[in-house]
Amino acid sequence: MKFPLAERMEYIAPFQVMALLERAKQLQSAGRDIIHMEIGEPDFRTPDTIVQAGIKALQDGHTGYSPALGIPALREAISGFYASHYGVNVPASRIVVTSGASGALLLALGALVSQGSEVLLTDPGYPCNRHFVRLLEGLPVNIPVGPETKYQLTPDHLAQHWNDKTVATLVASPANPTGTLLTPAEIQALNEACLARHGRLIVDEIYQGLTYGVEAQTALALSEDLFVINSFSKYFQMTGWRLGWLVVPEAYLDAVTRLAQNIFISAPTPAQYAALAAFAPDTIQLLEERRHVFAERRNTLIPLLTELGLKVASEPEGAFYVYADCTGITDDSYQFAYRALEETGIALTPGLDFGSYRANEHIRIAYTADTHRLVEAVERLGRITRT
Amino acid sequence: MKFPLAERMEYIAPFQVMALLERAKQLQSAGRDIIHMEIGEPDFRTPDTIVQAGIKALQDGHTGYSPALGIPALREAISGFYASHYGVNVPASRIVVTSGASGALLLALGALVSQGSEVLLTDPGYPCNRHFVRLLEGLPVNIPVGPETKYQLTPDHLAQHWNDKTVATLVASPANPTGTLLTPAEIQALNEACLARHGRLIVDEIYQGLTYGVEAQTALALSEDLFVINSFSKYFQMTGWRLGWLVVPEAYLDAVTRLAQNIFISAPTPAQYAALAAFAPDTIQLLEERRHVFAERRNTLIPLLTELGLKVASEPEGAFYVYADCTGITDDSYQFAYRALEETGIALTPGLDFGSYRANEHIRIAYTADTHRLVEAVERLGRITRT
Repeated sequence: MKFPLAERMEYIAPFQVMALLERAKQLQSAGRDIIHMEIGEPDFRTPDTIVQAGIKALQDGHTGYSPALGIPALREAISGFYASHYGVNVPASRIVVTSGASGALLLALGALVSQGSEVLLTDPGYPCNRHFVRLLEGLPVNIPVGPETKYQLTPDHLAQHWNDKTVATLVASPANPTGTLLTPAEIQALNEACLARHGRLIVDEIYQGLTYGVEAQTALALSEDLFVINSFSKYFQMTGWRLGWLVVPEAYLDAVTRLAQNIFISAPTPAQYAALAAFAPDTIQLLEERRHVFAERRNTLIPLLTELGLKVASEPEGAFYVYADCTGITDDSYQFAYRALEETGIALTPGLDFGSYRANEHIRIAYTADTHRLVEAVERLGRITRT
Repeated sequence: MKFPLAERMEYIAPFQVMALLERAKQLQSAGRDIIHMEIGEPDFRTPDTIVQAGIKALQDGHTGYSPALGIPALREAISGFYASHYGVNVPASRIVVTSGASGALLLALGALVSQGSEVLLTDPGYPCNRHFVRLLEGLPVNIPVGPETKYQLTPDHLAQHWNDKTVATLVASPANPTGTLLTPAEIQALNEACLARHGRLIVDEIYQGLTYGVEAQTALALSEDLFVINSFSKYFQMTGWRLGWLVVPEAYLDAVTRLAQNIFISAPTPAQYAALAAFAPDTIQLLEERRHVFAERRNTLIPLLTELGLKVASEPEGAFYVYADCTGITDDSYQFAYRALEETGIALTPGLDFGSYRANEHIRIAYTADTHRLVEAVERLGRITRT
């Protein structure tokens, strides 16, 4: 039967890692010991203070629609967090609570991107970003980046790729899959380069707070004219609750409000009440302890990977990923990921999930397992890398 | 400062009722007694069996990402519900759990609509539908409908408005704002009219189960080739949990899966575990009791509105709305809604929120208040309609 299929579906790729994850689960069901280093999800449970606040929200009957931009108390709490932790004044009126960072991304791009608009992105980068642009009939411009710029965009990239159709640049700090950061000066330069061209900078701060040896930052300290995307998923370890937020420049508040009303109605209400506990001192103390665990894992893992012949070309200072050049071992990281899984029970994400530039030369390794498991994972990988 | 704003924002309208709701809350804070008949939300709390299942989900640590298409147990439970309640075989593999019906709508349209594609819709209709089409750079074709077709589309409408760009028709049964139903024969005819033109029918069954004097139906009994959108918000009274589902024709499963992975990652996980309790016999018994309460309200309200001079031109047999022709009282329903609020404390939704065809001649009245309050509301409205 002939049937209409949206043209965008030619572009929107599945996650390669999903099929690999499926296979990993099969092996696991068959009794194999699998070490999961493929998923972008902390291995810690949501802190109990947040869970208890969620339970109380349900007991108190907070199960109806909430305002399209979020419950006022949570918008105020996020504003307060920016003030107390980052010393930045971000009025609650510019903070929009969303269904995950995914919702925030759709709102920001929905307000910026017209049919044919171009958005500058990194390759490698979080794959959904380019798919969101394409969903809205914009054109994602995936700019190859490497260790020479810490896998980040620079004003030179903007100068080279910006044209009349370009409306925005999206960067991430800390970045996925590379874990690299932008300095405040670098963000400032990118923001100025965008504004000078009458475009906007969107900064993905989804991994904010998860930095190692570097103080956590926010681009909001630098400008009121940029969009910031954030999430309760990573630092606050609330992935399944589907809660994020968007900080909106004043000029876009009306557009974003209309989009939020129409596209989402509201973010999940019980999750919003639960998230009120996310900024409490005891929660933050626990999350900081967990951050130190991530730091320890990272510091153990990177030297071991290097010994194995996996090159970590640009120091990952944030998130919980290592993006490793595996050309010392293989010229096909996709095949390598499957071989690692089948032969050693180690699940990794092939570079292909993050773009096409030198994708087959890289794998992403998430340190979302205990240190002793990471050590074991590297030992097991050694069996195939040395053959 | 010059800045890019997506062209779609010229089209995407705010909900008029939001400003009215804001004003209603102001009056309420000032001590006025407001009767709320403006919001599309049941006034019943989520059934306690579902709330308790949600609490247990949180206690059990179900707070991580879930599969992009939903947890298998819930997809199976929905499939089982179609079998037991409607006698229809819908395999779980075709059921995709989403972040509210909003998520389902975005997936279905995302897979169908290319830039410039046309989608046929009713005017009046749920406003977000046309905004979703526009979000995706498609063209919503809002077809004026009136009581002569129960405010529904017919194959004649399709014959008249279908062209080379048309990819889909979206109907709702029960419909918002009119509460009217399509019969199986009518849905069958619409589906055949779409398929004959190589397009697809999308049936919004968000208010499924909320019918009065008529057995609840599903379009899935008629065809495997249509999309069905559903929700846990209305019949199951889980609005704030943000949970819905989409039934997908086999041919679109791959596209919808890729979209779901990229756009949503997953639906809220605790809500999915909570919803497992939605189909339990004791929950359904409670929901059926509440449906009888809605029926009683409806049967009380409609004659009173008619006495007042508000014409209900097409019998609403479902949802919890009356779409009333108020030309006997006013030629400006928008102004009337504000007057009703200010002078009598009754909050109603002006027709403008549902389209432009004779919008100013209609208001939507939600019977989401106790019967005695509805009676009082009509009495109060009488004060202005008789002056």
